[in-house]
Amino acid sequence: MNAAFQDWMKTVQAGSENDLSGFLPAADVIPTKLHDAMRYALLGGGKRVRPLLVYAAGALFGADAATLSRAAAAVEMIHAYSLVHDDMPCMDDDELRRGKPTVHVAYDEATALLVGDALQSQAFLVLSEAATVPPARQVAMLRLLAHASGSAGMCGGQAIDLDSVGISLTLEQLEQMHQLKTGALLRASVVLGALAGKDLTEQELSALNVYARAIGLAFQVVDDVLDATADSATLGKTAGKDAADNKPTYVSILGLEPSRALAEKLRLDAHAALAPFGDKALRLRELADLIVQRKA
Amino acid sequence: MNAAFQDWMKTVQAGSENDLSGFLPAADVIPTKLHDAMRYALLGGGKRVRPLLVYAAGALFGADAATLSRAAAAVEMIHAYSLVHDDMPCMDDDELRRGKPTVHVAYDEATALLVGDALQSQAFLVLSEAATVPPARQVAMLRLLAHASGSAGMCGGQAIDLDSVGISLTLEQLEQMHQLKTGALLRASVVLGALAGKDLTEQELSALNVYARAIGLAFQVVDDVLDATADSATLGKTAGKDAADNKPTYVSILGLEPSRALAEKLRLDAHAALAPFGDKALRLRELADLIVQRKA
Repeated sequence: MNAAFQDWMKTVQAGSENDLSGFLPAADVIPTKLHDAMRYALLGGGKRVRPLLVYAAGALFGADAATLSRAAAAVEMIHAYSLVHDDMPCMDDDELRRGKPTVHVAYDEATALLVGDALQSQAFLVLSEAATVPPARQVAMLRLLAHASGSAGMCGGQAIDLDSVGISLTLEQLEQMHQLKTGALLRASVVLGALAGKDLTEQELSALNVYARAIGLAFQVVDDVLDATADSATLGKTAGKDAADNKPTYVSILGLEPSRALAEKLRLDAHAALAPFGDKALRLRELADLIVQRKA
Repeated sequence: MNAAFQDWMKTVQAGSENDLSGFLPAADVIPTKLHDAMRYALLGGGKRVRPLLVYAAGALFGADAATLSRAAAAVEMIHAYSLVHDDMPCMDDDELRRGKPTVHVAYDEATALLVGDALQSQAFLVLSEAATVPPARQVAMLRLLAHASGSAGMCGGQAIDLDSVGISLTLEQLEQMHQLKTGALLRASVVLGALAGKDLTEQELSALNVYARAIGLAFQVVDDVLDATADSATLGKTAGKDAADNKPTYVSILGLEPSRALAEKLRLDAHAALAPFGDKALRLRELADLIVQRKA
């Protein structure tokens, strides 16, 4: 990783942390326990992959910082809420997330449920407030986020994931599940960042979708590889859990080395899709590399 | 209740049922279990108080039916999701809702969690799709719904409710809790219906807020009176539960007759707030009467 990219990442990550804090009610605003728990769930950790994608795509068409910060915060709030609910006892029953106790462990289950619910509302609130884009485009951004979050996107993927425990999926079914569960929000991040800059042509939208699908899938393949090969301390979450839960993974279906090869192929697909955007797609290219080459 | 009002109600309720069904994915669309459960949670029951308020307020400024149907469906989806989550074992642990097994009983807890999450997304999706209002006003409607749903509205009220079990609230604290927990979404219903017709002046918004606050509070006072006096079969849910759970209610703080008197005073306050709107507020007046005089 080159130093300019690393500096850019650190700037976006620190800026996102600051924005996310500013876009949440303070912990001393009633109801204080809920607001404190929302901050616990959202702040102080995470790789901020989705905000990085929003900002990287924002560079394509010179989007302004105010709109990017709201789009980045909104997708990260949706992501964070999904983790809080996913960790609950009735779902994955995880006790550790980003190296910290999960929300239902640190607080209680009812609070975790409400934290997730309120973070989802907050995402739509943040994206619907003061924007510098024309209102029609702002509506399109809200529609995109809602579609990516709901039963045709992230929630739908989680439902398929739930139903697939202990049964054997084909590679195609596994891909469909991940394209919804994590892919939909990653695609939304890229398209929201671009939309913050201008209305998109069909060709631009199509190229960005190809890029986003490739990195979305690569993200999951690499997650499966890391889950099978890294330790919990490195990951900041319980390693080997998918295998223990008898969940289908790329590694269990394809094997370890073919999974690594698939991730590399997807990285190159992502680069190819960005060709029409030239130099302005530099950060999107570097993020594709990061997603495939990360160690945690 | 006069016959014209009853006919109007039946028309809106049947229309809402039809619209809600149309605004949800079909039960045979993957993930089928999630979509089936979303339909179970949302369709085939409920008094549709919020859609009735949306349509009644829509009559103030001649809003068109297409926008009203989306606004009505969106608030009803938020309401339905909150019931699904509220009924879960980690919250109220209720097994009966509208005379049917609750979602986590009919399906399972993980599905109930996802149903609520996906219904919330769907609400924002429905309200962000094809509308006949100018985009800037559509953004304002989305913002209003997000604000009413989140930690400054419904979720915040539920958090305060959770924290108040077994402790004694003042009348003021009880009112604040209900103004968030149920009042925020009732207010949003009224304002969304009016906004579907035109941009609101400060005076119009203020009058509608006074009306909506009065009926929101009346709604809760009457709920408490019914919980203390009606039986489960009439209510379609477990009666006497609040008292059994040692939750503070208007009846437990004020007593039964003073609670009834308060509801009647609030009904008259609601009527007074509508004076500036003349005849066009007929349905809003009738709904205030219905909310106070209902038996279930």
